[in-house]
Amino acid sequence: MEHVTRFSVSLDKKLARLLDKMCAEKGYANRSQAIADMVRDRLVEHRQSYGDGEIAGTITLVYDHHKPHLLDLLTNIQHDHGNLIIATLHVHLDHHNCLEVLAVRGLSAQIKAMADALLTAKGVKHGKLTVTTTGRDLPT
Amino acid sequence: MEHVTRFSVSLDKKLARLLDKMCAEKGYANRSQAIADMVRDRLVEHRQSYGDGEIAGTITLVYDHHKPHLLDLLTNIQHDHGNLIIATLHVHLDHHNCLEVLAVRGLSAQIKAMADALLTAKGVKHGKLTVTTTGRDLPT
Amino acid sequence: MEHVTRFSVSLDKKLARLLDKMCAEKGYANRSQAIADMVRDRLVEHRQSYGDGEIAGTITLVYDHHKPHLLDLLTNIQHDHGNLIIATLHVHLDHHNCLEVLAVRGLSAQIKAMADALLTAKGVKHGKLTVTTTGRDLPT
Amino acid sequence: MEHVTRFSVSLDKKLARLLDKMCAEKGYANRSQAIADMVRDRLVEHRQSYGDGEIAGTITLVYDHHKPHLLDLLTNIQHDHGNLIIATLHVHLDHHNCLEVLAVRGLSAQIKAMADALLTAKGVKHGKLTVTTTGRDLPT
Repeated sequence: MEHVTRFSVSLDKKLARLLDKMCAEKGYANRSQAIADMVRDRLVEHRQSYGDGEIAGTITLVYDHHKPHLLDLLTNIQHDHGNLIIATLHVHLDHHNCLEVLAVRGLSAQIKAMADALLTAKGVKHGKLTVTTTGRDLPT
Repeated sequence: MEHVTRFSVSLDKKLARLLDKMCAEKGYANRSQAIADMVRDRLVEHRQSYGDGEIAGTITLVYDHHKPHLLDLLTNIQHDHGNLIIATLHVHLDHHNCLEVLAVRGLSAQIKAMADALLTAKGVKHGKLTVTTTGRDLPT
Repeated sequence: MEHVTRFSVSLDKKLARLLDKMCAEKGYANRSQAIADMVRDRLVEHRQSYGDGEIAGTITLVYDHHKPHLLDLLTNIQHDHGNLIIATLHVHLDHHNCLEVLAVRGLSAQIKAMADALLTAKGVKHGKLTVTTTGRDLPT
Repeated sequence: MEHVTRFSVSLDKKLARLLDKMCAEKGYANRSQAIADMVRDRLVEHRQSYGDGEIAGTITLVYDHHKPHLLDLLTNIQHDHGNLIIATLHVHLDHHNCLEVLAVRGLSAQIKAMADALLTAKGVKHGKLTVTTTGRDLPT
């Protein structure tokens, strides 16, 4: 199998168990097949272009605010891109988990860069960039 | 690091190279962090399609508030599902266009029904339901 | 009593009863005395000057969204002063009552004018302009 | 209009003139509307000082997010009183200064205790608790 690269991955034990359960439910032959699928899917998303104009959108984050340094990191990223963020809505889901939504507007490349910085921050459990329109050139 | 499971993964060589390139572009510290992220994302999607659990999420809307009756309609739908909506963030994009984001939590079937009612309202230019996690049963 | 003007006032019946109860609890001799007190208090507030510089602040509104035309009116006022409003947070208190908070920034005279327009809209149960600082010239 | 009570009020002539001037400047339709507004405002204050009912309100904070430990402190206070906070709106005023508004609801003593904890946190430049009504027992 010369076309194949083998490498090792470290996952949280509980997360690995959830992965195995999902692989079984979905019918994947093994973890590698499932992960290959996710990688391809993520690549499609990553390459997705929103053109080179201005976009509006939201960035949704769920994280545990007790993670050391996470809050400072997320706030610093937001202030570094302050001109892209219109406002942030923060909701306390429970004692640990926060749901945060940023309303954003700006050049699509800049929005994507900020979203990548936020979504890849260690401790963010889940996040999504949702691109919509500024409404200006879209009739009803 | 006893909370961590280590296992090996086989990927097509070219796919592995693309994964590494994407990791660098997005700013992940290593492949494991990127793969953990994809697994959590896929779990959120997987649970959503099962549809019987509690989900958190956001509904993003762009609309022209001058459309007759649209505001009343959107507000009525929101108040009819008041128990699902934690809060709404409203941003004035320009004299005509509003960006509205609802932070929501509840049973996935109910959230979807409300999102459908909002997104199909005449005058809404663009809208999206973004499903995420309540964070409770998703480790980092 | 030539220094005195006499005029008639119409109040919602329930509101008039609550006024009488409060007058008794506070120890006012009669309604006129209580109302004179409120008028003086409101005049002090009205004359209060926030200088002629830039201020930041919030406008808090509680209203019944079922009041005919109220939603359209409030939204139109907000869009007419769109450059003063950073974002609006909307919370559904119950099936009837909304709590809305506007985060605002701009010249103090313009902010006050917009606040007056919102707070005097028929159907708004209670509202307040809270002036704070842009933080720039205020050390900790 | 059977829901309305009509009664007469005696005011000092000069005070009545100042009231009329303020009504015009603020944009009230007539004296009754202005007086109804003042009565509701005074009722909200009156109930607050009695302190045993449910109130709604907002807490406005301006702070420099670069202050060490401030963010963690503010977030911990918020999560410790999570049941009082409906949602938080966060706006980046500039690279240093944040404006944060919390929409809150609960027993007035608890709301005040949380507000005190937030407003006295070292590094908060300015803050205010604005008490309003849940709207339930306040007619228009």
